[in-house]
Order: sequence, then structure tokens, then C-alpha cells
Amino acid sequence: MKLQSRQVNGNGFSYPVELHEDLNGLKEKLASLKDVSKFFIITNRQIAGIYEKYLFAELKSLSIPFHIIYVKPGEKNKHIDRLKKVYHELVKEDADRKAVIVAFGGGVIGDFAGFVASTYQRGIRFVQVPTTLLACVDSSVGGKVAVNLDLGKNMVGAFFQPEFVYAPLFALSTLPRREWSCGLAEIVKHAFLEGGELLNRLESTSRKDFHSGAEVLRYCIDESVRFKSSVVEQDEREGGLRAILNLGHTTGHAIESVTKYAKYSHGEAVSMGLMTALLLSKSVLGFSETNIERAVKMMKALELPLKINEKINEIIEHMDHDKKKEGSTLKFVLLEDFGKPKFGVSVGRDKILEVLKFQKGWDLLGR
Amino acid sequence: MKLQSRQVNGNGFSYPVELHEDLNGLKEKLASLKDVSKFFIITNRQIAGIYEKYLFAELKSLSIPFHIIYVKPGEKNKHIDRLKKVYHELVKEDADRKAVIVAFGGGVIGDFAGFVASTYQRGIRFVQVPTTLLACVDSSVGGKVAVNLDLGKNMVGAFFQPEFVYAPLFALSTLPRREWSCGLAEIVKHAFLEGGELLNRLESTSRKDFHSGAEVLRYCIDESVRFKSSVVEQDEREGGLRAILNLGHTTGHAIESVTKYAKYSHGEAVSMGLMTALLLSKSVLGFSETNIERAVKMMKALELPLKINEKINEIIEHMDHDKKKEGSTLKFVLLEDFGKPKFGVSVGRDKILEVLKFQKGWDLLGR
Repeated sequence: MKLQSRQVNGNGFSYPVELHEDLNGLKEKLASLKDVSKFFIITNRQIAGIYEKYLFAELKSLSIPFHIIYVKPGEKNKHIDRLKKVYHELVKEDADRKAVIVAFGGGVIGDFAGFVASTYQRGIRFVQVPTTLLACVDSSVGGKVAVNLDLGKNMVGAFFQPEFVYAPLFALSTLPRREWSCGLAEIVKHAFLEGGELLNRLESTSRKDFHSGAEVLRYCIDESVRFKSSVVEQDEREGGLRAILNLGHTTGHAIESVTKYAKYSHGEAVSMGLMTALLLSKSVLGFSETNIERAVKMMKALELPLKINEKINEIIEHMDHDKKKEGSTLKFVLLEDFGKPKFGVSVGRDKILEVLKFQKGWDLLGR
Repeated sequence: MKLQSRQVNGNGFSYPVELHEDLNGLKEKLASLKDVSKFFIITNRQIAGIYEKYLFAELKSLSIPFHIIYVKPGEKNKHIDRLKKVYHELVKEDADRKAVIVAFGGGVIGDFAGFVASTYQRGIRFVQVPTTLLACVDSSVGGKVAVNLDLGKNMVGAFFQPEFVYAPLFALSTLPRREWSCGLAEIVKHAFLEGGELLNRLESTSRKDFHSGAEVLRYCIDESVRFKSSVVEQDEREGGLRAILNLGHTTGHAIESVTKYAKYSHGEAVSMGLMTALLLSKSVLGFSETNIERAVKMMKALELPLKINEKINEIIEHMDHDKKKEGSTLKFVLLEDFGKPKFGVSVGRDKILEVLKFQKGWDLLGR
């Protein structure tokens, strides 16, 4: 059953992001695409194992042939070295310019499959079927696709919009705890950036409420999609405004990098990074202590980590590597208030050091 | 000295293709780009060796830093396996989103460097400085960039337009004979597709006239750029019309593939393929014998090969591999007359066989 639909409109693109209860309805959406030679579902065996009976039932009743390409799971396999095998499989399975790629999985699958679609034969159509909360509220919307290099995440990519996004919410019930954190961190980010009703609703919601599939989940997904779409519509290529969506990510990426992507999930690292951003906002832009308190309370109720455990110097070093050219200041997205983001704010190393030290000492305060 | 300039306008892009006598003027063009952090010249050592003193003199007097990335020469190195090394060099040399890539070389460099630019950090700006006739009249214009897979040429790529094209014509004087054939074959293709004055001028021109750098060279380059631009402007993504630019290429690619890209240059293979297309046009669309005679005379004067020496069955097999899905007919771009192309014309295998056999027996007729 279709629950909600949002149209994402931009310069030269327009597509719906649809929330559905389950996979009944995917077949109809796929069949609505014109002039398709073959569908290529890119997924991993773990995900396919969970949805096999639903997915295959839908696909087999289509009149168009399909082929499933399995990739290895995890961020470390969203890698440039994994591309060639998939391109070769496409060639061998007769993928022509009328082929359509279906990215079936979380953010890793969506980014990887989307990049393949953006480059195979100079670009073929693709569809996103996000099965994680993160992919539903963030990565499947907006057309950022990419693979990693050993020297950096998402360093090779494209802006490439899907034909549609089909989010089957029943998939979220099978998510492990850490995957929930990933999605919740991005929802929190959207709430900080937008303020208003989304923020208010989140403040009165606990982690349990989300896990129990309450109506608040649907509301937050829909609002996140709406907010992110509105940003992407104004600035698809991140010439300016879209940069606000990096709130919390400068520190988050550094933490992931320092811990070699092994200790924290992306969402956990972003969660800590969001708190760094708020503390810097207080220090630099006069963001209020009351707001910090609100944010801490909310994120604790959502069971998102706030405290930093890593070596502060290493974190700053990794931030430096990202932004080598900027000298002794680094640029951040910060908030003047909830709903009032500013991007490209220069912050001196001394202030960053101070804030990170404070955040590292937080266990003493019971945070 | 700037000799000529053509503006290429399309949906969301507009850039000049400038013919210059030499490299004096490149510096000024590069300096006209706004907000550049660093220039990355992608070239090979052979090309750099020829132009070093001109190029470096121009670059060193710029106020913006530059770095030269050397790639290996030749079509076989325009390969997906060669990408990672270049991406890594960009990261290590601090290429950010304000970096600009300068593709300095022939079609291989342009395609490869353009693809790197289209994907590095989701796309950074790039500039084409074509140093071969082929690159001047064809590959540097229109935004098709790509790398090869073992399983096919140009299978991974993008449509990505440069900031400008700067063609220094003095570079052509150093070209080896085969490189001239490559460019001339594409000029002949444009003349066949357009008819009119370009065709007339070519008919009264010999290979020697081109080599001696007569005014006809500049005229043909400029007309080729104008013609190609007009096609690209109407159909950047090859949804329809742009397909006509593949005239001669179905057979050409098959011949290259059968001979493992070793025996003929791309231009020589395309030249044979153009003749196949004309003969098929006669057989299928009533293209006149008089036109065939004109084409033969013209291509002989330009010293372009017409006769096929390979095994006919192997050539057809390779065409089949390209278009597996079409069953017992293959689709070609053909001509009703000079200047009247039709794309997507189905031709039965028997007719192709007949024409290729005829073309293979041509030495008997002194062709």
C-alpha cells in the first residue's frame, strides 16, 4: 500500500519518493517505466535472503526480463575496485542503454549501484529501493552517488537522479540496532537544520517509539524527505546551500577515519559530530546553552552517542587532511539557532581543540 | 593567434571551441576561468616532450599552481584499470572541487581525462587542448568522455562538457601519417552526413594539400566543429539524432575488434566502415552509384583505405556481439543521399554479407 509520495523537482529532473508498506506495488512502478530492455537488481546476498520471496514474486510476474547482481556488503566494498566486476556482469548479461538498474538495499548499495548506473554506457536509468532508515531519509534522495578510494570516502562519483524512489517501510523492522542509529542521526540533523515541527516531534519521541513502528516514524521519514528535497531542488550540485546537509559530517568523517570505519557506524560518528557542531556553534555563533540542553536530552532519548573517546589530535589531523588548503582554520556548517544554518564558517584550530576536549570529558557530566 | 571560434550551445551548457595557431593564448584562456585552486594537466610523456617549452612557459607565468599528471599513451591505456592511479594522484596533490583538469593530447587523453573530471569529487571543471586532427574535429567537441573495459570500448563514461576547447593547430604538423588518417576519416564522415560545401571542398583536395597545411585544413576543421556542434546541440545524450555520427562506426568497430586494435588505426577502420555504409546505403536505400564513385575517388585522393582484408564472418560476428538483441538484422546509420542520413535502419545479415564480400574483392577492381 502506498502511504505517502513526495515529488522531487530540480533543474532537469522530477521524480517521486514513495513510502510504501511493503513490496506489493513495486512491480507496478517498474512496469510504468517505458521502453525497458531488462532490469538489473543490484543487492547483496544478505538483503536478498530477507526479501527473496517478496521480491522475486514481484519481478517474475513482470513481462520484462531481470537479472540479479550480487555485491559484497559494507562500506569497504563501496569501492572503486569493485566496479569492474559489476560492469562486466552487465556487459555479459546484455545490458544496453535501455536497461534499468534497481538499487535494492541501504546507502552502500544505493551509492554504488547509482554510480554504476551513472557511468555504464554513459548513463542508464536507475531506481532506488531503500531498505534502511538511512537510505530512506537521506542517501536515496538527491542523486549523490559515489564510490570510495583508499584515500577518501565518496571521492569518485556523480550527481545522478533516479527515476523514482520506492521505500518499503516493512524493511525497517529487520534492521539491526546500529542501522537505526544511522537513520536517526540523519533525521536529527534534518531537525536541527530545519527546526519547527520536526524538531518538536523528535523531542517528544524515544528510541523505543521508533522501534515499535509508531506513526512518528512515518512522519519523520516523510518530513526528512521533504526537507532534503527542498534543499536539493535549490542546489543539486552543492554550489552553495546544499553544503548545510554536511552538518556534523566534518567531525563525523574524521572520527570514522581515525577509527578505520570499524568502531562506529556512520550514524554514531555523525551523531558525535552533530554535537561537536552544536558546541562550536555556541562558541562561534552564540548558539544558546538552552538549545544545547535540548539537543542533548533529545539525542540521549534516541540513544545516540555524544561523547568522543578518540584522541583529539588524531581527529583534528584527519579534518586537516580533508581541508588541507584552508591553513589554520577549518570550515564548518554551524547553527545560529535551530533552523538557522550557516555554511563555510571558518573556525580556528584552538576553538576546535577546546570543544573536542570538552566533549571528550563529557562522561564526567553523565552525558 | 586566435584563428576562429565556434560556440557550442546546449541544454545547460555553452562553451567556445577555439582554433589557435599555437599555444600563445592558452595562458590567457586558463586565467579567464574563475575561482580555480589548481590546474592538473593530464597528458603523456611523448606529447609533453614535444610541447614542454611552450606549455611550461605558459603555465609557469600563471598565478595559479599547476601539476602535470602523466598517463600511458594509446587506446589500450584508456582503460578502467588506469583510473585509480590518477584519482590517487589528484588526492595527493590536493585537488579539491575548484581544481581544473586540462586534457592535453589526442582523443585518448581527452576521453580519459574528461572521464576523470566528470567523476572526481562528483565532477570538476575541465578544458580540452586537442593536439591531433581527430581530437580537433571530433572527440574534443560534444562532451562524450569514457574509458574502455576489456569487454568493450567506451563502455564506462559520461556526457560531460568542457569549459572550453583550445585547438593549437601547429600541433598537427608533428602528427604521424596514421593520425592524419584518423582525423581525415571523421572529416569525410561529416562531409557525407552534411553534403554541401564541405563535401565539394573535400572532393577537390588531396592528402598532400592537408599535409602541407593549406587553408583547406582550417576550413575543414572549422566546418567539422560547426557540423558536429549543431548535432550535439540538438541531442546531447544521443536519444536520437546524434546517432548519425556513428556512420561507418558499426563496421569500423568490428574491424578494430577482429584485428585486436593492432593492425589498423581507428581512422583506417572507420574509413573502411564508411565505405561499407555507403555500399549498404546503395543496396537498402537506393543511394546512387554515382555517389559511390564520388566517394571512392575522394577517399582515394585522401589516401584512406577502402578495401576489407579480414574474414567476413568474423566481422559479422563482432557486429552481432555489439547488437545481440536485434536478432538476424542489424541496425545501421545509412544515407539516402549525401546530406540525408537515416539512423536505426535494419539490415539483414545476407545483405551485410553480400556487401562485405564485394568490398573484400575490391582489389580486383583496382580500388
